[in-house]
Amino acid sequence: MTYIPGLKGVIATETHLSSVDGEIGELIIASYPLEEIAPRATFEEMAYLLWHHSLPSQSSLNAFTESIQKHRTLPNATIVLLREAASQNVSVIDALRMATATLSLTSTNDDASDAQTLIATLPTIVATYWRLINNQEPIAPNPNLNHAANYLYMLTGKNPNPAQTRAITTYLNTITDHGMNASTFTARVITSTRSDLISAIVGAIGALKGPLHGGAPGPVLQMLQEIHSAENAEPYMRAKLEKGERLMGFGHAIYKVRDPRADVLYDALESLFADNSDRDFYTFAQHVEKTAITLLEEFKPGRRLQTNVEFYTALLLHSLGLHPDLFTPTFAMGRAVGWIAHSLEQRALDRIIRPESVYTGHKNGQWIPVEKREPLLT
Amino acid sequence: MTYIPGLKGVIATETHLSSVDGEIGELIIASYPLEEIAPRATFEEMAYLLWHHSLPSQSSLNAFTESIQKHRTLPNATIVLLREAASQNVSVIDALRMATATLSLTSTNDDASDAQTLIATLPTIVATYWRLINNQEPIAPNPNLNHAANYLYMLTGKNPNPAQTRAITTYLNTITDHGMNASTFTARVITSTRSDLISAIVGAIGALKGPLHGGAPGPVLQMLQEIHSAENAEPYMRAKLEKGERLMGFGHAIYKVRDPRADVLYDALESLFADNSDRDFYTFAQHVEKTAITLLEEFKPGRRLQTNVEFYTALLLHSLGLHPDLFTPTFAMGRAVGWIAHSLEQRALDRIIRPESVYTGHKNGQWIPVEKREPLLT
Repeated sequence: MTYIPGLKGVIATETHLSSVDGEIGELIIASYPLEEIAPRATFEEMAYLLWHHSLPSQSSLNAFTESIQKHRTLPNATIVLLREAASQNVSVIDALRMATATLSLTSTNDDASDAQTLIATLPTIVATYWRLINNQEPIAPNPNLNHAANYLYMLTGKNPNPAQTRAITTYLNTITDHGMNASTFTARVITSTRSDLISAIVGAIGALKGPLHGGAPGPVLQMLQEIHSAENAEPYMRAKLEKGERLMGFGHAIYKVRDPRADVLYDALESLFADNSDRDFYTFAQHVEKTAITLLEEFKPGRRLQTNVEFYTALLLHSLGLHPDLFTPTFAMGRAVGWIAHSLEQRALDRIIRPESVYTGHKNGQWIPVEKREPLLT
Repeated sequence: MTYIPGLKGVIATETHLSSVDGEIGELIIASYPLEEIAPRATFEEMAYLLWHHSLPSQSSLNAFTESIQKHRTLPNATIVLLREAASQNVSVIDALRMATATLSLTSTNDDASDAQTLIATLPTIVATYWRLINNQEPIAPNPNLNHAANYLYMLTGKNPNPAQTRAITTYLNTITDHGMNASTFTARVITSTRSDLISAIVGAIGALKGPLHGGAPGPVLQMLQEIHSAENAEPYMRAKLEKGERLMGFGHAIYKVRDPRADVLYDALESLFADNSDRDFYTFAQHVEKTAITLLEEFKPGRRLQTNVEFYTALLLHSLGLHPDLFTPTFAMGRAVGWIAHSLEQRALDRIIRPESVYTGHKNGQWIPVEKREPLLT
């Protein structure tokens, strides 16, 4: 074996959960093409599908939905900790990781129960913390709303309309799973030692936090805000490209054609703005997108750089009223379904993931007592 | 590429930190053979060596030791959380993971500072929690004691004698690093996304928790307690082997000869009992060990199964008065030095670890609305 930097191209596992084909722009989730399932399923149906490998019957779905709904409330100690975190200005994603770790307070150390608790409480943690850092009292979960709608409700105190509920649901469904990304891999490595689901998901949130992984949607919105008006789009982005800088929201390491998630989110945005309300920002963003594609073809001919999932994520979450600081934590809420599904798949496999390292240092160090060591010249 | 279960034999990284050669029983840590460095260095020297790639001068060591000592106190919110965890009977390792996650409350998001805070607070968390679940008030860190001695002091309220301090120090030094084990790999994957050290170490604790990784020292002591007396050793273990069961504390997946860590811990035990005080249990354990080796040669001829690190770990930690529930958390305190060193090495490399998966499911799922789905026959 030779050293393979980043384990690029190494197949770490077989999976029934998702398939990413970047050459043809295909994403399959639990046997369904993304565009077949994401715009139609509720989030609860999507979680059931990934955890049980088939869509639920009506009675199974009702029982599953009700069971998750009952797990939404946080332990009081978790809320106390979130208040403290808010007073210390901890970032939302750190607060989410910290609070998720406390779910062991009430865990019965059972995968099925931990899985439901994790999915049910992540939105409560994020919404509770968001209100606390904005000096608002947290809002209790609304048992009459489904998972996705309740998240928007807990953030704002307002019942979302059906188009908004569909949009956030489609977003969460779209990002549930995506092959062997770094956070999903983290969850699998942790589970592979026979550790518990809460440990796995806490580790995965820590990996998602990194800017090379989940931290991307924020900068897209920043770019749109810096461009500010349609007439500024062309000169702003031309200047960036002339300086050799990247345009945020375009191109992807894996997809050589259009990211299928971008299509699904584009359709969700079209539905969200079907009544033409507040369409100005969306129209502006579409102008930026067209301009960017034209400029990229001019500056990087033949590379066929496409709008990626981050661009539409930023548009969709912004249109639903979410602050950019909520983007990565909201991503975690959706991806947690995949993290858990992979952990359950790894649990069934029951084999430790333990690669090797190659040592490149010396081997003949000899002890010198501290009083005889030369101070290093620095 | 083909699928390699468990990534067995795959080289995930190059490292200057440690080298494990199971064929010849060699463990090198940061260029020093284990037996050269572990019995001599203080824990602070060992951490400095792994993080800075050379042993410190006297003045550097003094500054480093003092700086770590200043980070020992826990945020008040962490203690509040530990009290709540104690009231819920959370396991020590879960409480450690949970409390470590709260270190983001006071983090300045700087690697050097996070590294010192993590190393300094892990013993405080474990000792604080141990006293709380035993209905005792926590003991504040003693600034006059070094890292290892202070841990024993915070557990018991008694200043350890020099032999005890040396024994716990040697134990912690011995386990600081050991190639690309699952928890160290977890820390590297998390850091590889450009996430922070606290996220990496929280993830690693979650991986270490699994019984296939860090959870092994407990069962050795259980076996010794079940054997109870020297004359029972032979019939007890013979019965186990006749039933095809494993003897806890013997054999290792990697070492084909004697685990070099076992030698170092054996010497530490000999020093600890040099004054012949309380030697009864140690003498008994040595009898069990000799009997086990003889029986293993009889039942598994030619396999040359040796006493492993878990056997001596159990003896050493038990002799220092540590309950088996503290074994894995104490292991985490030592290994955290290696987790951090690997995270810093990965930080310098700055490349995401992202292997691939191969999809084994179907691709042609078609949406059926829930009201038209057939209930599964179960």
